Amino acid sequence: MITNPSRRGFLATLVAIGLICCSSLQALAAETDPLPSWNEGPTKQSIIDFVSRVTDKSGPDYVAPPERIATFDNDGTLWVEQPLYTQFVFALDRVKALAPKHPEWKTTQPFQAVLEGDAKAIAAAGEKGIVQIITATHSGMSTTDFNKIVADWLATAKHPRFKRAYTDLVYQPMLELLAYLRANDFKTFIVSGGGQEFMRVFADETYGVPPEQVVGSTGATAWQMWDASPVLIKMPKVDFVDDGPGKPVGINKFIGRRPIFAFGNSDGDKEMLEWTAASDGLRFMGLVHHTDPVREYAYDRDSEIGRLDKALDEAVAKGWTITDMKNDWKTIFPAEKTSP
Amino acid sequence: MITNPSRRGFLATLVAIGLICCSSLQALAAETDPLPSWNEGPTKQSIIDFVSRVTDKSGPDYVAPPERIATFDNDGTLWVEQPLYTQFVFALDRVKALAPKHPEWKTTQPFQAVLEGDAKAIAAAGEKGIVQIITATHSGMSTTDFNKIVADWLATAKHPRFKRAYTDLVYQPMLELLAYLRANDFKTFIVSGGGQEFMRVFADETYGVPPEQVVGSTGATAWQMWDASPVLIKMPKVDFVDDGPGKPVGINKFIGRRPIFAFGNSDGDKEMLEWTAASDGLRFMGLVHHTDPVREYAYDRDSEIGRLDKALDEAVAKGWTITDMKNDWKTIFPAEKTSP
Repeated sequence: MITNPSRRGFLATLVAIGLICCSSLQALAAETDPLPSWNEGPTKQSIIDFVSRVTDKSGPDYVAPPERIATFDNDGTLWVEQPLYTQFVFALDRVKALAPKHPEWKTTQPFQAVLEGDAKAIAAAGEKGIVQIITATHSGMSTTDFNKIVADWLATAKHPRFKRAYTDLVYQPMLELLAYLRANDFKTFIVSGGGQEFMRVFADETYGVPPEQVVGSTGATAWQMWDASPVLIKMPKVDFVDDGPGKPVGINKFIGRRPIFAFGNSDGDKEMLEWTAASDGLRFMGLVHHTDPVREYAYDRDSEIGRLDKALDEAVAKGWTITDMKNDWKTIFPAEKTSP
Repeated sequence: MITNPSRRGFLATLVAIGLICCSSLQALAAETDPLPSWNEGPTKQSIIDFVSRVTDKSGPDYVAPPERIATFDNDGTLWVEQPLYTQFVFALDRVKALAPKHPEWKTTQPFQAVLEGDAKAIAAAGEKGIVQIITATHSGMSTTDFNKIVADWLATAKHPRFKRAYTDLVYQPMLELLAYLRANDFKTFIVSGGGQEFMRVFADETYGVPPEQVVGSTGATAWQMWDASPVLIKMPKVDFVDDGPGKPVGINKFIGRRPIFAFGNSDGDKEMLEWTAASDGLRFMGLVHHTDPVREYAYDRDSEIGRLDKALDEAVAKGWTITDMKNDWKTIFPAEKTSP
């Protein structure tokens, strides 16, 4: 029973101040949490601890900005790779689009299998078949034309399960991690088994990683003059495979420095993580473990796509950071943009 | 006959003010001239005009900073390449250093010729001989060990004519140009026929170009485990030759964007300059023409090293910027550091 009006006024003021303080503190917390889509816990903490230590000028683990090289795998680490690698979906779509110009494909494997939607026959064609599909669809045009073909495809293709553009199916927590590292003067690179030129079409806009910081598998290109104008033509020949032991080779070739921070999700990233771990000083080795069948996918040791087996054992044995997607990530994908 | 002391005082003050103004203006001019080692004239002006136009946000030639890619050849464009490419001098020195471990070299060409100092026989071994000398001296060790071998050699080797370290024999006007471009938000790359790993050892300290912005010829490397520790071993196999048509191929592979500014000095740079010229918008194509036998060297159409013939004709025909070393450059090399 508060009857004294001035006392009531005083209390109201206190409550008001309390409310303002609370919301300011919340705003401040949201502002200063660089990884809001990561649940609190040891995974998030290991990232923040690492960044704090290598950027602390007075600490023993300080690393000068130019040496702050961070490398990220792409498929399954930055964006969805199930049920098929996005670039392979693109290649299958290109086989269908190009089929009218290649009547022989109707009776030639693995193209016949693609045109008939015969997944079993595609699988039976094995790695040789995959290379045939990739080279047939990724060559015979200029680099400029290829970029346009990829951009057009990405603008319209939708993921079969999520019904969203593939460039929307990137992991929100990893976008925040990329931005957090860059805010701390890291240079972020993609080091992926995927096609370098394919990724460069969207990596800048999607991840904030410019073309010159995208390392991937490459095909041969040839310098030619077309109508007295120079072009680079994509040739049906694999030049470099940036996977497994190819990742440290690619890092040495394209970057020329060793990462101090590396993130992957499959056995194809094992050597990149070992290469990162094997130099002096504090180093961060991270894996995304796909454990969330409801919001994304759950797969590891037995998956044909993004198999995580030996690298998982090694991560456990060596204490690398394993991200449990289901428990460590508050959200998986960026919110869908509402139509205007 | 000035007798009025106050008038004398007034004049003295005027003179003093004049002197102060003059020296301030001089200081200001020196401060604002980004290319003090370039003589005034059309060459210098063409550089400054280009940079002004592509950085003028309100002008028609504006280029956004991420697209401000500048590529420079190294040998003969940024440092001396006569009488022999520096890296080849390094390789010859390595043959001598490694000879005790290779008794067979005493009787095997081209190594015998190197050990006997027989320039004629080395020349007779031709391109095949050069590749043999390069691969024999640039393989069989880890990338880390190779870097140390190069750094040790650069620290002691002297140029036969100038008696200075090779990393001192860089062109002061080009150092200023690199810095000027970077101050205007250009990203500067080296794109050279020289060995990528060789150049990366000194490019950061010497030119301010970090390893990840050095593109050059590469040898194959192999991932191996030595004492349970991963190493990259340099193999005796050429992986990529970044010269001639290889330069645009290398630019596409390693940078993934097309330069808007490119500088070379020989026919090996022709395709890089053509590739730069062939895209839309204002573009800068520059050549260093070695015309100064007194302060450096004079050579072009008939030189075995750094031949400038077809690219010179094309530069004249297309109005590219040709730097006349003798007339355009006030100084050639940075001043020698005086011993402490």
